[in-house]
Amino acid sequence: MEILVATENTHKLKELSAIFADHTLFTPHEKGIEYFFEETGETFLANAQGKALALHEQAGSPVIADDSGLVVPALGGEPGVYSARYGSPAGGPNLDTPERNRYLLGKMEGLTDRRSYFVCCMVLVLTPERFFVAQETLPGRIISEPRGSYGFGYDPLFYLNEYNQTVAELPEAEKNKISHRGRAGIRLRAVLDSL
Amino acid sequence: MEILVATENTHKLKELSAIFADHTLFTPHEKGIEYFFEETGETFLANAQGKALALHEQAGSPVIADDSGLVVPALGGEPGVYSARYGSPAGGPNLDTPERNRYLLGKMEGLTDRRSYFVCCMVLVLTPERFFVAQETLPGRIISEPRGSYGFGYDPLFYLNEYNQTVAELPEAEKNKISHRGRAGIRLRAVLDSL
Repeated sequence: MEILVATENTHKLKELSAIFADHTLFTPHEKGIEYFFEETGETFLANAQGKALALHEQAGSPVIADDSGLVVPALGGEPGVYSARYGSPAGGPNLDTPERNRYLLGKMEGLTDRRSYFVCCMVLVLTPERFFVAQETLPGRIISEPRGSYGFGYDPLFYLNEYNQTVAELPEAEKNKISHRGRAGIRLRAVLDSL
Repeated sequence: MEILVATENTHKLKELSAIFADHTLFTPHEKGIEYFFEETGETFLANAQGKALALHEQAGSPVIADDSGLVVPALGGEPGVYSARYGSPAGGPNLDTPERNRYLLGKMEGLTDRRSYFVCCMVLVLTPERFFVAQETLPGRIISEPRGSYGFGYDPLFYLNEYNQTVAELPEAEKNKISHRGRAGIRLRAVLDSL
C-alpha cells in the first residue's frame, strides 16, 4: 500500500519505512502535497489524529501521523504535548535541543522522583471514518547530565534501566526495536496485515 | 489475556469472544466491578475511549469498549453518536427499536440519497497511556420497510448491496464476519497478537 507520512523528517521516514517494509512510504513533499495543522491539542491523540486527518483531506489516500513526547509525572506530566516547544517563549521559536534539555534539568532540580516515559501516539487513516490508533510508551528516568550522541531531543537525558544506557547511547537499530515510536509502528503494521 | 468488556450485552460479549478466541473476556458484572460513564461525546472515539478509561480506572486491568452507530450523510450524519437515543425526548427513556426505526424512516421520507454506513469505534486500553483504537465501517443503504429478524437496532432497515439482504436477514456468524464491530475487533486482535 502507498502511505503518506505526515513528516518531513527523513530520519522518522526511514525508521517507519523499516517497520512498514511491505508498503511504500512517502513524505507530503515527495508527492507535492501541502497541508496545515497546528498541534494545539491537549493530548497526543488529538494532535496525531488532527494531523493525519488534515493531510488525508489534501491527499485523499492512506496517511500515517504521530505525535510524541516526554512525560515526567513529578512535573505534573510536563513537558507532555509541549515537548518540542518546552521552555520556549510563547509564539517564539523553539529552543535548540541542548537549551531545552538544560531547561528540563533546571525544572527537575532537587526532584528525587525522576521516573519518566516517552509516549508515541500513531494514527493510520484510511478514510475519515476508517482509522486505527496505537499509543505506546517507553519507561525510563531522567539523569542529571546528557550522555550519548545517537537519537535526538531528550534522548541523552533518558536512561533505560534495563540497558544501563541512555536512549542516545543506543544504536539506531536497537532503539527502533524498543522505542515508543517503533512499538506503535509495529502495532499499526499488524493492523495493516489484518486488512 | 484476561480482558474486561465494557458491556452487559451478552450478545456483544459472545460476538467478541469468538473474535478474541485466545483470550478470556468478562463483563464488569461478572467481576463485580462498577463504573460510570455518560456517553455525551461528540464522536464515537470520544465515547469509546471515555468508557474504556472509566472502566480501566475501576478495574486496573485490560479493557475493551466500543461505541457504534448509524450515519446517514443525507441527514447531516444523523443519528450518529445519538443512534441509541434517536428520536427520544431529552432526558427521557430511549424509544424501543420499532419506534426508533419508524422515526428514522419519517426523517428520511422523500430523500433519494439513502446511502448510509454503520460505524464501530473499538478501544483496547492496557494502561491509560498504552491503548489501541480501531474504527471500522459497514456501508449500505436505508430501505423503506424493515426486513429480517436477526440482529438488532437499525439492522432490519440496513440493506447490503453485495448481499441483496438487510443485516437483519444475515445469520449471526455471517454478520460477525463483515460487520463494523466484527471488523474493528479483528484489527484489535491483530494488535494483541503483535504484543
